[in-house]
Amino acid sequence: MKPYNLDHIAIAVHDLDEAIDRHRTLFGAEPHSRELVAEQGVEEAMIALGGSNVQLIAPTHPDAPVARFLAKRGEGLHHVAYAVTDIEQALAELESKGARLVDTVPRNGGRGARIAFVHPAAFAGTLVELVELPYE
Amino acid sequence: MKPYNLDHIAIAVHDLDEAIDRHRTLFGAEPHSRELVAEQGVEEAMIALGGSNVQLIAPTHPDAPVARFLAKRGEGLHHVAYAVTDIEQALAELESKGARLVDTVPRNGGRGARIAFVHPAAFAGTLVELVELPYE
Repeated sequence: MKPYNLDHIAIAVHDLDEAIDRHRTLFGAEPHSRELVAEQGVEEAMIALGGSNVQLIAPTHPDAPVARFLAKRGEGLHHVAYAVTDIEQALAELESKGARLVDTVPRNGGRGARIAFVHPAAFAGTLVELVELPYE
Repeated sequence: MKPYNLDHIAIAVHDLDEAIDRHRTLFGAEPHSRELVAEQGVEEAMIALGGSNVQLIAPTHPDAPVARFLAKRGEGLHHVAYAVTDIEQALAELESKGARLVDTVPRNGGRGARIAFVHPAAFAGTLVELVELPYE
């Protein structure tokens, strides 16, 4: 399994509107999509930068994992997402190598994608998301 | 100023060789460059993923900023880098908008790039690096 793209880097924020405005003011970039992702308890906005994206995520309720992250660490870099062509195969391969997974079965992400998180214990304290997009 | 690419996402690690091996084992990707960046007190390895890169960085001495980050927070996501065509113009624009800068003058980064960091206070607790590459 080799990811074919760095799909996005996610930044956890308290207020999505404010973060979009601030990012636009400083870096002149506009989100190309914005949606609620119920299964993750977040609202997310995707900003394209070259072939990758900056994803701003804000929790939709106080028990969402992102709300707990914000309470503990404040706003900041949250996870990095690798695009794969076959997420089940990628998860099976990681599991066979002993990598600890957050999700052993794909869940529904934004943009119609199927996603799964790899535990930060698997690689360098970094929360890695695998993304299988419905296109490409 | 609009960055034209998400140049890289940087992950701070204790041991660069070990991290490269682990990343290769899990994600099948090999660094295309590796170098000491004296001015930042780091050794860095760049792994291409689509049009972006994962940069693994390890401190070369205990007083390097990355060593302090590791001591405080452990391994994990460190910064995100935006590629710009004119770094002086980008810094001047950010400064005029009141964004707090770490570097008001560009420094030497890896790959022959000129780089400058924007303070996490400027945007969502996120350390943003501006990169002007010697090519593109």
